[in-house]
Amino acid sequence: MDSILKIGNQGRCDLFLNHIVGKSPLLVTVIGNTETGKIPGISAAGANPNITDFTPAADIEYLYYEFCKCIQGVPVTPTGIPTPGIITKAIIDHLDFPHLTVIGGVNIFPSAPFISLGGNAGGDISTGSAVENPEKIFANGEILGKNLSKIANYLVIGESIAGGTTTALGVLTALGYDANNKVSSSLPENPSRLKIDIVTSGLKARNLKKGDLKEDPLNAIKYFGDPMQAAVLGIISGVSGKIPVLLAGGTQMAAVLALAQNLNPNLISNVAIGTTKWIVNDESSDILNLINQINPTVPILAANFNFGDIKYEGLRVYETGMVKEGVGAGGCAIAAIMTDPKKMTIDILQKEIEKKYEHLSL
Amino acid sequence: MDSILKIGNQGRCDLFLNHIVGKSPLLVTVIGNTETGKIPGISAAGANPNITDFTPAADIEYLYYEFCKCIQGVPVTPTGIPTPGIITKAIIDHLDFPHLTVIGGVNIFPSAPFISLGGNAGGDISTGSAVENPEKIFANGEILGKNLSKIANYLVIGESIAGGTTTALGVLTALGYDANNKVSSSLPENPSRLKIDIVTSGLKARNLKKGDLKEDPLNAIKYFGDPMQAAVLGIISGVSGKIPVLLAGGTQMAAVLALAQNLNPNLISNVAIGTTKWIVNDESSDILNLINQINPTVPILAANFNFGDIKYEGLRVYETGMVKEGVGAGGCAIAAIMTDPKKMTIDILQKEIEKKYEHLSL
Repeated sequence: MDSILKIGNQGRCDLFLNHIVGKSPLLVTVIGNTETGKIPGISAAGANPNITDFTPAADIEYLYYEFCKCIQGVPVTPTGIPTPGIITKAIIDHLDFPHLTVIGGVNIFPSAPFISLGGNAGGDISTGSAVENPEKIFANGEILGKNLSKIANYLVIGESIAGGTTTALGVLTALGYDANNKVSSSLPENPSRLKIDIVTSGLKARNLKKGDLKEDPLNAIKYFGDPMQAAVLGIISGVSGKIPVLLAGGTQMAAVLALAQNLNPNLISNVAIGTTKWIVNDESSDILNLINQINPTVPILAANFNFGDIKYEGLRVYETGMVKEGVGAGGCAIAAIMTDPKKMTIDILQKEIEKKYEHLSL
Repeated sequence: MDSILKIGNQGRCDLFLNHIVGKSPLLVTVIGNTETGKIPGISAAGANPNITDFTPAADIEYLYYEFCKCIQGVPVTPTGIPTPGIITKAIIDHLDFPHLTVIGGVNIFPSAPFISLGGNAGGDISTGSAVENPEKIFANGEILGKNLSKIANYLVIGESIAGGTTTALGVLTALGYDANNKVSSSLPENPSRLKIDIVTSGLKARNLKKGDLKEDPLNAIKYFGDPMQAAVLGIISGVSGKIPVLLAGGTQMAAVLALAQNLNPNLISNVAIGTTKWIVNDESSDILNLINQINPTVPILAANFNFGDIKYEGLRVYETGMVKEGVGAGGCAIAAIMTDPKKMTIDILQKEIEKKYEHLSL
């Protein structure tokens, strides 16, 4: 069994992997809150819409402390499945990866050190008002990216933001990509129709149609996106190809990639998508189609997890399409394997994940 | 002329320099505001006490943009001498050093990316109330230091905080060191008597005497220190000897060193003080005596600047004892020289500083 699946352009996948092999990354987790994420039925990133604001902060706390401070237990889906941050935590502990937290814009801050880019939490994109000051978040992200590119071998950029695939659909549509029914979901039943309705309503509120912001990615974020996107876009721009960047996420990161492509295609010459098998195999979304529309030369790498034999139900359900990805889980697994591809296998990581789950206090 | 002066234990100075030679550092600038810094006559870090809150944020903005956003021009002393941040900026631009900003606790935030450690601005130590939550700042600083130690070759930690030598006297006294008339000043006439009165008043307010907090450095900060100290102490603790740390500052950094020594002497095994000739030659303070009291094995390195022949009066006055140090100026010069000691001399850096001054819009 291959530990990493290479989707799309094989040569470009190999080239990217060659750039990172034997190296340790810096994990940068970018978090955000939006009103979009609280629309009922849109996100599984929290037991109910009212507490989704706490999920990103709680994920960060879990990554640092192995327990959360701002909530009891750990973030769970409405049916009680714990955060994919467990996967990330197991991996970064095992490999001793450094990690930093960046705030795109939140209502709830983690009890941990964090990097502020001057952004605020986002609105509800069905109103056509999403991010107050994407230019500022972008500019600060750019400074950060520039400085991190001088100290890190490469970046793995993860995210935690509820409703992130809906805002992904928002910006992808505004940029002119055909993304309906192509963005994924943390829910087993992708609420694709609801997402389309939300984006349609937002476009209407702004009197815009699909593709109208093709040349204006920052306004696409302002109206239909989220603060995480502005932050990651800024970081990518600051890195500007100087070190590899693995965007650790599914179709949310495809949206960021689209923003970068439309801002300046040169920015993504050394950028790849790093996600999970569950995202690339998902029948209710289509990340490969999205990347092919955006820029078919971008490598899509997927951690080839198989949770079928794991002891714990809360992990086995990933095989049924629950959760799928988040908090940089897939990208971290890829980075871990690439530190030593001959020795570090997905099986070893899964044992670590199982152990981490065992210590979980729900 | 030697570019770097080695003060105190020569063997330990050489050992530290051997650890950093040929390497680039990560500059971490830690900023803070306190009510102590606004006591009239205590600080030259601002044209008048009312605007000292803006000085640290303005220094950070200057380091990133070469101009300030939160004030017009750049920070100046009451007699119009511009910030030592000019020295730092000239050096980090010339050497392309990465730099990150950490907030100890401020009232005015820079328009730039910054790392929050959850701290607030400090009080007036003459009341015996200085820092609300030093434990929290320390704990977050520790996480940050731990993570930075995995990506940086070594750290140069600078500071910008008005009144920092008064809070240095505060904690040094609480820890039992004999620091009266030994902490330096950005003013040409060191207000040593005023500083002693402030600290005496603070001790009285807490019903404590010199040395009573010898074994309790975090409470020394809480009552008589500042948020910058808590942040730097936390970072040092997180780094915990894994990479070298150059504390870039004068007697303010001696106070941080004392806090670390009293918290756990193992923390400072790979820590040095990096400052300027103007600090070590200052007749109104005595950094060598302080370090000898704290731990005589700690290397004191000083950038051997000579601004006597520089075109601009605003820099020549450093030779008369104005400003002396700040914003990591001395430590950055040492780090710059150590990237390539055969080629990079203090003269080359002074030419860069002169050029930077030329572009200044006051």
